[in-house]
Amino acid sequence: MAPKEEAHAAVMEAKTMASQPQQQETPPIKSHIPISNYSKRVVLKTLFGREDRGFGLIGEKIVIGGWVKSSKEVRKQPSPLQHDTEHQPGAKTGHKDVTCTEILQNRMPIFRTFLKLFGVGNHAEKDSIGSLAERVQHPVSSTVFLQISDGSCVATLQVVVDSTLAPPGQIMISGTCILVEGVIQQPTTGGKHIIEIKAEKVLHLGVVEDHEKYPLSKKRLPLHTLRDWAHFRPRTTTVASIARIRDGLTHATHNFFQKNGFLYVQVPVITTTDTEGFSNKFNVTTLLNKTTEESSSTKPSAVHENVSGVSLASVKASLKEKSNKVEELKRTDSNREALLAAIQDLKKTDELAAQLAAQEKKEKAKDTALVKPDRLNFTDDYFSCQAFLTVSGRVHLESYACALGNVYSFGPRFKAHTSHSTRHVSEMWMVEAEIAFAELEESMNCANDLLKHLCKSVMENCSDDMKFILKRVDQGIVGRLQTVVSSTFEKIPYCKAIDILKQAKEKKFNLNMEWGITLTEEHESYLADEIYKKPVIIYDYPKEVKPFYVRQNDDRKTVAAFDVIVPKVGAVIRGSQNEERVKMLSTRIKELGLSSEQYEWYLDLRRHGTAKHAGFSLTFDLIVLLATGISDVRDVVPFPRSYGKLNN
Amino acid sequence: MAPKEEAHAAVMEAKTMASQPQQQETPPIKSHIPISNYSKRVVLKTLFGREDRGFGLIGEKIVIGGWVKSSKEVRKQPSPLQHDTEHQPGAKTGHKDVTCTEILQNRMPIFRTFLKLFGVGNHAEKDSIGSLAERVQHPVSSTVFLQISDGSCVATLQVVVDSTLAPPGQIMISGTCILVEGVIQQPTTGGKHIIEIKAEKVLHLGVVEDHEKYPLSKKRLPLHTLRDWAHFRPRTTTVASIARIRDGLTHATHNFFQKNGFLYVQVPVITTTDTEGFSNKFNVTTLLNKTTEESSSTKPSAVHENVSGVSLASVKASLKEKSNKVEELKRTDSNREALLAAIQDLKKTDELAAQLAAQEKKEKAKDTALVKPDRLNFTDDYFSCQAFLTVSGRVHLESYACALGNVYSFGPRFKAHTSHSTRHVSEMWMVEAEIAFAELEESMNCANDLLKHLCKSVMENCSDDMKFILKRVDQGIVGRLQTVVSSTFEKIPYCKAIDILKQAKEKKFNLNMEWGITLTEEHESYLADEIYKKPVIIYDYPKEVKPFYVRQNDDRKTVAAFDVIVPKVGAVIRGSQNEERVKMLSTRIKELGLSSEQYEWYLDLRRHGTAKHAGFSLTFDLIVLLATGISDVRDVVPFPRSYGKLNN
Repeated sequence: MAPKEEAHAAVMEAKTMASQPQQQETPPIKSHIPISNYSKRVVLKTLFGREDRGFGLIGEKIVIGGWVKSSKEVRKQPSPLQHDTEHQPGAKTGHKDVTCTEILQNRMPIFRTFLKLFGVGNHAEKDSIGSLAERVQHPVSSTVFLQISDGSCVATLQVVVDSTLAPPGQIMISGTCILVEGVIQQPTTGGKHIIEIKAEKVLHLGVVEDHEKYPLSKKRLPLHTLRDWAHFRPRTTTVASIARIRDGLTHATHNFFQKNGFLYVQVPVITTTDTEGFSNKFNVTTLLNKTTEESSSTKPSAVHENVSGVSLASVKASLKEKSNKVEELKRTDSNREALLAAIQDLKKTDELAAQLAAQEKKEKAKDTALVKPDRLNFTDDYFSCQAFLTVSGRVHLESYACALGNVYSFGPRFKAHTSHSTRHVSEMWMVEAEIAFAELEESMNCANDLLKHLCKSVMENCSDDMKFILKRVDQGIVGRLQTVVSSTFEKIPYCKAIDILKQAKEKKFNLNMEWGITLTEEHESYLADEIYKKPVIIYDYPKEVKPFYVRQNDDRKTVAAFDVIVPKVGAVIRGSQNEERVKMLSTRIKELGLSSEQYEWYLDLRRHGTAKHAGFSLTFDLIVLLATGISDVRDVVPFPRSYGKLNN
Repeated sequence: MAPKEEAHAAVMEAKTMASQPQQQETPPIKSHIPISNYSKRVVLKTLFGREDRGFGLIGEKIVIGGWVKSSKEVRKQPSPLQHDTEHQPGAKTGHKDVTCTEILQNRMPIFRTFLKLFGVGNHAEKDSIGSLAERVQHPVSSTVFLQISDGSCVATLQVVVDSTLAPPGQIMISGTCILVEGVIQQPTTGGKHIIEIKAEKVLHLGVVEDHEKYPLSKKRLPLHTLRDWAHFRPRTTTVASIARIRDGLTHATHNFFQKNGFLYVQVPVITTTDTEGFSNKFNVTTLLNKTTEESSSTKPSAVHENVSGVSLASVKASLKEKSNKVEELKRTDSNREALLAAIQDLKKTDELAAQLAAQEKKEKAKDTALVKPDRLNFTDDYFSCQAFLTVSGRVHLESYACALGNVYSFGPRFKAHTSHSTRHVSEMWMVEAEIAFAELEESMNCANDLLKHLCKSVMENCSDDMKFILKRVDQGIVGRLQTVVSSTFEKIPYCKAIDILKQAKEKKFNLNMEWGITLTEEHESYLADEIYKKPVIIYDYPKEVKPFYVRQNDDRKTVAAFDVIVPKVGAVIRGSQNEERVKMLSTRIKELGLSSEQYEWYLDLRRHGTAKHAGFSLTFDLIVLLATGISDVRDVVPFPRSYGKLNN
C-alpha cells in the first residue's frame, strides 16, 4: 500500500485530472482494443492479458463492467489532515480483497488477532459503513476508488469515480455492479496497478439493496459457509479462480481425447440399468407429481387461471376499490339497482379473493405436504418401468466402443450415498473412456497419460489462477502437480497393497486388515502420501469389491480392475478391462443376485461380435481438487448436492 | 461391381498370392504407420486419411480390428464355373453395405421390387446362410473377402482371409468382430479400394452367436426399427456417421465459446427450482427405493449373501451331490452316524436352496410389483425436500454470468412431456449461454454466430461423413447448411409473424390465428420453409408463452425473447434478455402462481449487484438433425428416452 504522502499527492493529481475530461472532445472507442464479443464492453482479461498489461492503451476510451470488490473514498472538501485521520480505517478495509482476507483469517487464527490490533475487521467495517450512510445524507464532493472484478481474470481494475457521477454511498458497497465509460490512465494512487479507468459516465448501476443481507459483505466467510450461497460464491476471488480452472480442465479433457482419436458420446442420464450393480441409485419418476396433483386437484387449473393474469394481489386491490365504490354509493344515496349491482360485484370478487388465498395457502403448504398415494405402480410411471439416474456411463459407452473403437463421455453421474465425505457429492461430473481391442495395460496407460496431460495443461494454461492458488490457498500445489506430471506412477497389485498396509508402522489401521477388504480413503492415502509419495496404480482387485462387469482373471478370485491414487486427493480414476466372455459375465450377474433382465442388451454386445475392451472413469471434480489444493469437493462443484442438502 | 470375368481373374490372382506370404520372412510392424494409441492396432482412419489413401504403405505388416459389414467367399477347390453359378447370389448380397441397402429400400419402395427381380434380398440371403452352414460341416478350402469397419471413418477395408486361418462360416456373418495381423497389398479383386489386407494371423474372433437373433443381420431395417437396438445401431454406417458428426459438433461448440472468451460451467441436473416455470418435470427421489426395499425386506441382506458367492445354481448342484451321497451311504450300508450327518447336511442345503429360490422369485416379481407406501413425505426424502431434474440450466448459469461475465453450459436437460414429436425426447442435450452486460440484440448476435459456426465446421471437419449423408440420406443437406452459413437471418417481431400466418394462402391453419397464441411447429415451418426459405429470428413474444424470467418490454405485453427457426428443423435456439429488475421479476413469479420460495436465491441475484444480461439455449440434438438431414431426433440421440420408452 502506498505511504500516506504518496496517496495524498495522488489524490491531488486525481482531482486535477477529474476536472478535465468533460472539456475534451469524446473520441470514439478505438477499434484495436478488443471489445468483448456480444457485450458492449472490454473484459479485463483482454487489457491485462497484453504484454504491456494495458500500458500502451493509456488515453483511450473504453467501457468496463464488473462488480465492486473493495473501495476507498477520498473527500475533496475537507482538509487533507481531517481526511487522513477520519477515513483511513475505512479506506484500509476497502483495500483488502474480501477473499484474501477471508482465507488468511480462516487459515491463520493469529492473523485475526493481528487484524484486530491494527483496527481492521468488523469494527472498522461498521465504522466505514456508518460514515457511508452519513455521507449519503450529507453529500460531500469526493473521489471514489473502486476495485472492480469482472471474473475474466484474477486481477482487479481500479476505477476512479467522481461523486458527482454516482452516489459514493451506493457504489462503494462491495458487490455493487457497475458499468462505466471512461478513459484509461496511469494510476493516480500508485500501487501495483499499471493502469486505471477514470470514469466519465456511469452506464449501469446494480446496487446492493441491503448491505446486511448480502452474504459476501461479511469479510471473513470461510469456504464452508459460502456453500450456503452457491449463487454468489463465484464473486469471490477463490471460487472465481476455481471456476476458471474447471473451465481450463474441461477443455484440456476434450483436447486430450480429440488428439488421440476418441469420439465423444453423450451417454444417457436416465436408465433402467444398474450400471455398477451396487444399489445406491436415485429413482426418476413422475408418479409423485401425479399424487401431488391428485391431493391438490385444483392446482393445475388454478395455475392456468393465474397465467391469464389474475393474481391475489390484484384481486385484493380490486376488492378494496369495489368496497370503496359500494361505500360511496351508499353515502351518495344513488339508485338501489346500481348499489345492488355493486354489492353483487363486490361479493363475487370477495369469493375469488378467498379462492385465490386458499390456493396460495395450499401452494405454500405443498412443500411439506404428506403425499399419500394408495398405490404406486411403475407400469403407471412415465417410462412404464422403474427408471434411475445413471451411476456410471461406462456400460452404455461400451456399446459405442464396440462399434466405433475409441470413445469417451463427460457428464453428470449420480450416487445416493448417505455418508458425508469431502470427496463425494450426489451429483458429480465424470469422464469415461472405453477402448475396443484394448486390455488392462492399455487402459492404465491411457488413464496415466490423461492425468499427466490435465496437470500439465492446468499449469500452462491457467498460470494466473495457479499463481493465486499458490499464494492464497495451497503453497504445495505446484510441487504436487509437478510430481504427477514427471513421476512414473507406482504400479502394485492389490495383494501387495494389503501386505504393505499390514506392515504399517504402529499398527496404524484398526480394521482387520486382510485380503478381500475394500480399501478406504485412509488406506489409499497411506500408500500414496506416506509410502510412495507419488501417484500409485493398484490393480487386480478381489472381484467382490469391483462392479459386475470387470473381467475375471485366470485365478478366478481377482479381476482386471485398477485405481489411480493421487497423493492428498485419493482415487481419481477407476478403470478396468471389461468382461467380454458372455458366460463369465452372465454367471457374475447371477452370483451378485442382480436382475439379469436389465442386462440383456448389455449381454447382447458379447453375444454378437464381442471384442476385448477396457476403459476407466475419472472423477472430474476430484481433478479440480487436485489442481486447486482445495480439500472439500463441495467447494469446487458449482452447485453441490449432497445428502439432505439441496438449496436451489 | 466388377464383371464376372474380371472377378474370376481376380480370384485366380488372389489364390496365387495367398500361397506366398507364409514363405516370406515376417517383418516387424514399421513404426511410421501410426498405431492407435492405447490399442495395439491401426485404425482405418489413419490409413485412409493419408493423401495416398494408404497406397504408399503397401508391403507393410499391420494389425487391424473391426466388425464385418459384408463378405464374399471364393472357393479354391470346385471348378470356377460351379462357384460362379452356386454362390454368386450370396456374394452379391455380401457386397451390399447393410445400411445403404436398408436406406435405399426404406426410401424407395420401387427399389425393393428391383432387388427382388434380381434375386437379392431375404431369399438370396437365406440361401447364402444355408450354404454357409453346409460348408461349416463340409469344409472346402476357400478365400474369404471381408469388408471391415472399425467406426473411425465411413470407408471399409477389404481383408482377405484364407479359410485355413478361420472358419468362413463364422467370419462371414456380418457383425462378427475380427482382429487380424496381415500385410497391406494392392486389391486382388479390383473395385474402388486402393489397398486391402492379406491376413496372416487371426488374433481375435468375436462370433455372432445366433445369426437370427442379431438384429443387424436383417438387411432392410429402417431407422425407426433400429431404435429398439440402440446398443447395436452405431454399427450401421448411417448411425456411425451421425455419431461422428455429433462428436464434430460437440467440439465445434466448445471451440466457439472458448474462442469468444466464455467459461464453461457445469450447472446441476438435480434442482429444487422449476427452471422454466412450466411443470413438466421429473421427480428425483429415493422414497420409492425405500418402499421397494420395505416391501421385500429380505432383499438387501440376500444380495450380500450372493456377493459371498452362493448362487442358486451352485446350491442346486451341491444339493444333487449331497443327495447322491446319502443314497450311496444307504446303499453301501455304512455306519449310521455318517448317514445321519449326511442327511442333516442335505436338509440344510435343501433349506438354503428353497430360500434362494424364493428370493429369486421375489427378485423377478420385483419389476412388476405394486409399491404400496402408506405415506410419502418429502422431508423423509434424500434431499429432505422435493427434487427435480432440471428443465433448463439457464437460471443457474445466470448466477455465474453475474460474477464471471460470459459463461456457457452443455449438458442433459429433461422434460416429462407426454406428446409424441419427432423433435423432442425426454432427455436432450442443450447448450446454454449467458452474457453479462448484454441485451436482446447481443444474445441474438451470439446465437446467430454460433449456429453459422456449427454449420460451417461440420462441412469443413466432417467432410467424409457429409459426403455419405449427401449420397445416402439427404441430397439437399449441403444446400441447406450453406443457406444457414451465408444468409442473413430474417428478423421479425412475433406480431409480424402472426400477420403473415393470418394471410397464409388457402387459410392453411385451422387454429384460431390471433395474437397471443403459441406458435406451433407447423407455423414455424411455414415461415422458415415457405415464406423466407432461410433461418428466421422471431422476437418480442407475448409474455404468456415465455418463461417467467424473460425481461418485460415497455409495452407490458411482450417480452424480450427470441427463437431462431431453421428450415426443415424448426426452433433450434430459444433466447432472451432476462429480467434484471427484482420487482418486475417477483411480480411475474406471483402472477404465474409459482411458489416464490424456490426462487429466493434467484431473486437474490437481482437484489445485490444486478446486471443486465441475456442468453439462449440451443437444442444440440436438433443441430444434429440439421447437420444430418435425419428427420427424427430419436435417430440421432445415442440412447433416446421418451414417453413409455426406456430400453436400457
